[in-house]
Amino acid sequence: MTAPASPAARAAAVEARIDADGRPEVWIERVPVAELAGAFASVDARAAAGEELPLAGRTFAVKDNIDVAGVPTSAGCPAFATVPDRSAPAVRALLAAGAVHVGKTNLDQFATGLVGTRSPYGAVRNAVDPSRVSGGSSSGSAVAVALGQVDFALGTDTAGSGRVPAAFNGIVGIKPTRGLVSTEGVVPACRSFDCVSVFARTVGLAERVLAVLADPATPATGDPHRRLPPPDAPLAPPAAPVVGRAGPDALVGVDPGLVAGYESAVARLVAAGCTVVEVDLTPFLEAGRLLYEGAFLAERYAAVGGWIDAHPGDVDPVVGPIITSARDLGASRLAADVDRLGQLSAEVEALLGSSEVCSLVLPTVPTHPTLDEVAADPVGVNAALGRFTTFVNLLDLCAVSVDPVGGLPCGVSLLGPAWSDRVQADLARLATAPAQGAGADGDGDADDAAADDAWARPAFPSVLLAVAGAHLSGQPLNHQLTTRGGRLVRTTATAPVYRLVALATEPPKPGLVHVGPGSSGGTVEVEVWEVPPVGFATFVAGLPRPMAIGQVALADGSSVPGFLCEPEAVDGARDITASGGWRAHLAGG
Amino acid sequence: MTAPASPAARAAAVEARIDADGRPEVWIERVPVAELAGAFASVDARAAAGEELPLAGRTFAVKDNIDVAGVPTSAGCPAFATVPDRSAPAVRALLAAGAVHVGKTNLDQFATGLVGTRSPYGAVRNAVDPSRVSGGSSSGSAVAVALGQVDFALGTDTAGSGRVPAAFNGIVGIKPTRGLVSTEGVVPACRSFDCVSVFARTVGLAERVLAVLADPATPATGDPHRRLPPPDAPLAPPAAPVVGRAGPDALVGVDPGLVAGYESAVARLVAAGCTVVEVDLTPFLEAGRLLYEGAFLAERYAAVGGWIDAHPGDVDPVVGPIITSARDLGASRLAADVDRLGQLSAEVEALLGSSEVCSLVLPTVPTHPTLDEVAADPVGVNAALGRFTTFVNLLDLCAVSVDPVGGLPCGVSLLGPAWSDRVQADLARLATAPAQGAGADGDGDADDAAADDAWARPAFPSVLLAVAGAHLSGQPLNHQLTTRGGRLVRTTATAPVYRLVALATEPPKPGLVHVGPGSSGGTVEVEVWEVPPVGFATFVAGLPRPMAIGQVALADGSSVPGFLCEPEAVDGARDITASGGWRAHLAGG
Repeated sequence: MTAPASPAARAAAVEARIDADGRPEVWIERVPVAELAGAFASVDARAAAGEELPLAGRTFAVKDNIDVAGVPTSAGCPAFATVPDRSAPAVRALLAAGAVHVGKTNLDQFATGLVGTRSPYGAVRNAVDPSRVSGGSSSGSAVAVALGQVDFALGTDTAGSGRVPAAFNGIVGIKPTRGLVSTEGVVPACRSFDCVSVFARTVGLAERVLAVLADPATPATGDPHRRLPPPDAPLAPPAAPVVGRAGPDALVGVDPGLVAGYESAVARLVAAGCTVVEVDLTPFLEAGRLLYEGAFLAERYAAVGGWIDAHPGDVDPVVGPIITSARDLGASRLAADVDRLGQLSAEVEALLGSSEVCSLVLPTVPTHPTLDEVAADPVGVNAALGRFTTFVNLLDLCAVSVDPVGGLPCGVSLLGPAWSDRVQADLARLATAPAQGAGADGDGDADDAAADDAWARPAFPSVLLAVAGAHLSGQPLNHQLTTRGGRLVRTTATAPVYRLVALATEPPKPGLVHVGPGSSGGTVEVEVWEVPPVGFATFVAGLPRPMAIGQVALADGSSVPGFLCEPEAVDGARDITASGGWRAHLAGG
Repeated sequence: MTAPASPAARAAAVEARIDADGRPEVWIERVPVAELAGAFASVDARAAAGEELPLAGRTFAVKDNIDVAGVPTSAGCPAFATVPDRSAPAVRALLAAGAVHVGKTNLDQFATGLVGTRSPYGAVRNAVDPSRVSGGSSSGSAVAVALGQVDFALGTDTAGSGRVPAAFNGIVGIKPTRGLVSTEGVVPACRSFDCVSVFARTVGLAERVLAVLADPATPATGDPHRRLPPPDAPLAPPAAPVVGRAGPDALVGVDPGLVAGYESAVARLVAAGCTVVEVDLTPFLEAGRLLYEGAFLAERYAAVGGWIDAHPGDVDPVVGPIITSARDLGASRLAADVDRLGQLSAEVEALLGSSEVCSLVLPTVPTHPTLDEVAADPVGVNAALGRFTTFVNLLDLCAVSVDPVGGLPCGVSLLGPAWSDRVQADLARLATAPAQGAGADGDGDADDAAADDAWARPAFPSVLLAVAGAHLSGQPLNHQLTTRGGRLVRTTATAPVYRLVALATEPPKPGLVHVGPGSSGGTVEVEVWEVPPVGFATFVAGLPRPMAIGQVALADGSSVPGFLCEPEAVDGARDITASGGWRAHLAGG
C-alpha cells in the first residue's frame, strides 16, 4: 500500500480522469478542482482528528434533481434551475460521513424517462457501448460510476431510474425501500413513489453508502415520506432462501443475450443453495401499467405542471407533453387507481409477505436500445424498458440491480417486500460473479470487499445475542435464529470468567455459568448474532427451562445479551470448559 | 341472579322493547322475531356445547351500509339496495362470537352526513331529546344502543359518523385505528379513510366487541385496507399520562353546556393523575377541512358517483349534489391534497408520536342542533358539526368518544396516534363518571364492568413477563415496564418450587431460584405483565448482571417468561423465601 496522494493530487486525478473520458454530457455542474482539493484536505483533517468517517475520501456525484447547497438544481431543465440554500439530507449525510462531492449529473428532464436521452445537456451515451443508451433517468450518475469517474453516485428512482441505468452500464443500483432515505430536497417526479437511489461498482460499497443515507440520525425534519425500518425487518435471508423467477411468458421479447445473463444469475442462486420457483407476474405488471397509463401521472403534473404550462418553450419536446397530458385527468379516476393499486398490493403481499418466497429475481431490463432506436420512437422504446422495474415502487418493494456477467452489461434485479433491503443485497451478492462480488472490478476498489462487514450495512433495528450451544451455526436449533431474520455478526469467545457444563436437555445443550469471585473460569466460544427485536422477543419468550438470557461478558471487554442457564441445572452437570466450546466438545466426542 | 329466559322470551322482549319506543325511523330492516328466537337458541346450544363465546347472547344492530348475508344493504338509498351473499367479516366475527343480530339501522345516505336526517327512511330523532338530531351518519345504530334496544351496534366512521352520534345520544363510540377492523363488505364512503366503528353503553363492552372485530384470525381475504397492530403498540397509558387539550381559541363557538361537560372530563383526567397541557390544533383543523373542502370528495364519487349520475331521482336532495360536485375535480388537485395531508400528518406525528403527549382530549361535537335548525340549513349546520372529528381518520388517528356527564349528553373524545387504541380506551374510562365507567347505566349491564378484563381487550402483540422484585408495581424500576407500553395483567404467585434470595444489587433486588428435585421450595408473589414485543426485547437486552430471563412456573400450572438470576449471585445470598415475596420482605424489613 502506497502513501495516499496529497489532496491536490487526488483532486487533479479526479479531474483528469473525467476529462480524459470525453463524456461531457455526463455532467451538468462540476466542482472546481481547487474546491475539490479543499474538500479532500478537509476530510483528511477530520480523519486525523479522530472522526469516524465511513466514507472518508470516497468521491460521489449527485443527480441534478437533488439539492446541493450553492449549486443550481436544474432537474435537467436549465430554465427551471434554482440555487438551494441547503443540501438535501441525503447529501448532507454523505458529506458528514467524509465523502467528497464531485458534481451534479445529467438526467432525463424532470426524471421523466428511462433512456437518458431526454436532456438539453445532451443524450448520455452508454459507458460500455456509446452507440447505445445509458438508460435513465439517472443517466449521468450511472455512467460516471461505470467509467470510474467517481466511487459512487446518487440517483433517484420512481419507475426504475435507479436500476435501468445500472443495468445498462454494468454496475450496482440499490433502490431502497420507499422512505428509508429522505427525499427532502429532491425535485418531485411522482412524490408518493420517489426514492433516492445509490450507484456503485460493488454491492459492498453501495450498501455502505445506503447505511450512511439511512441512518435514523440523518436529519430530515418534517419529511412526511421518511419511514424508519420496523422492528421485524429481516437482517439476512433465511438459511434456505426461496426465490421467485419469471416464467417463459414473462420473458417473451427479452433480448436473448439478456435472457442468457438472467439464467446465469438464476443458476448462480441455485448453486448457492436457493430454491428457485416460477412466479406469476400478472399483478406486478398490472401495477406497473398504472404509473404511466393511469392517473398517477397527475402527481407529476401537480409537481411541475404549472411551471411547464408557463414555460412551454423551455421544456424537452418529449417530456413536456407526457406531463401536461395529466392536466385534465379526473380526481375520481386517480381515486379508483389508488384503490386498484391497493388490491394489487394485497395480492403481491400475499405472495411475498406471507409465503416462503423472500425475493424475486428478474431481468432489470428487457432490451438495450441504441440511441438511434430511441430517436426514432422516443415514447414507445422508453415505455417498453420499464417492464420489470415500474411496478416496484408502486407496490412498495425494494430492489437491487447487479450485473451477473461482467463484460457485456446484463442487469438482474433482486426485489422483495418493503424493508427486505438487507435480504435483497445479500441475494444480489450471491447472484453476482464472485470476482465482482469481491470488488475486483479493476478500479482499485478491492478494499470494498474487506469493508463489506456488519457496520457497513444499513442499521435496521436489532438486538445482539450470544449463543454457545445448540443455536450455533450448523447446530440443531440454529434455524430458530435464521427464520427470525437473524444474522451472524461474528464468532468470538467469552471473557475468561465462565464455566461450560453439559446439561441434561434434549437436544443436548451446554450451560454457560459465570464463575464467582475467586473461582477460576475459562473462555468459551460464542457466536454473536443480531436478531430483529420482534424475533428476539418471541425467541426469548419461547425458551424452555433451564435456559435463560442475561448479559454475557466477551473477550473484548464488551457485554451482550446471551445464553445462560438456571442454577438448578448446573448442580452436578459435567464441566466441559476445558474443551473451549460446545462445538469442540461435540467434536471431541 | 335469575335463570335466563327462554330464547323465545328473549326474542319477544327485544321485539317488544323496540316497538314500545316508537322510533320506527331507527330501523331499515329487522330480523323477524321467530328468527331471532332461533338465533338465541343456537347460541345457547353452542355455549352448552362448550364453545367459548365472548359475546354470547349479546344483541347488536348493523348500520345499513355493512353487509349482512341475505339482507338488503341499502346505504340509506332504497333504489341502491342489493342483497349480499356473504356478511362483512366484521359481522361474521360477531356472529362467531355468539352475538345475536337484531337488524339493520338507518343512516345518512351513503354515510354522507353527521346529522342523521338525510335518509328517505326518516330523520332519526335524538334518543334523549327528540327535537334534536341524533347525529350521523350512523344515526340508527347509536339511537338503538342509547335506547337499550340492543347491547351494541356497528357503525362506520369516515368524518366522525361513529363518534358524533355517540356524543349526541350519551353513549360510547370507538373509532378504531384505520384497518384494525376490516372494511370488506362496507359500502365505501371515502375508501381510504373508512372505518367500522362500535357503539355501546360502556367502554368495557365496546372494547370487548372491538377485541372480537380486531381478532387477527378474522377472515378478511385480500382486504387491502386491513392492517395488523404493530409489535410496539402500547398496551396501556404510561404511568403519568400527559394529555393535550383544546385552548380557548379552539373552543370559540362551542355550546356552553358542552364546554362545561368538556371541562368536567378534563378535571376528571387531572384528578386521575394526568397532566393536561394545551395543544395547538391548527394542523388538525386544516387536515379536517381537506375532507370536504378538498379533492378527497373524489373518492366518494369514485365509489357511488356513477350510480348517482344514472339514478338522479333516487337520491337524497342534500347528499346527491355533495357527491356529484366531485365529478369534475382534477387529479392533480387530489395529488396536491394528498401531499398537503402528508405534511400535516408529519406535523401531527411530531406532536403526538415523539413527544410525551399520548392523547388529546377534545369535545366530540361543538353544538347540538335541533331538527329544525338542520332543515333550515342542511349543509352549513352539518359542516360545523365535524370540527373535532373530521381530521381524525385523515391523520391516521384513533378515538373513543364517551359521555363524561350522564343525563344531558356531552361527548368528549380521547384520541391519539394509530395503534394507541388501548391507551385511548383506558383514558376514556378515566374521563367518564365512575358510575358510568362501571356500567351502571340502569340497563342491567352491570356485568359489563366485571367483564372489563384483559381478555376483553383487543389482542395487540405482547409477551408476558413475570416480575418479582424491583419491577413490581410501585417499586423503583416499574417505570421500565410502563414506559414501554406494558400493562399489569394479574398478581399471582409462583408454583411452590422456588427460593427467593436477597441479591447484593443496587437498587436492591431479589433473585428467584428454581429448586432442584428433592429440595423444598416455596411460592413467591409475582406480577404478570404484558409487554409489547419491541419493549420486551429492549428490556431484556438492557438487563444488568446477574439478572436473567427464563421460564417461571406459576401457581396455576402455567409457565411464563420471567425474572431469574445467575447461579453465581445465589451463592451465599440470604434466603427470604419465607416472606412470600419481595414486597412482604421489604415491609417486614
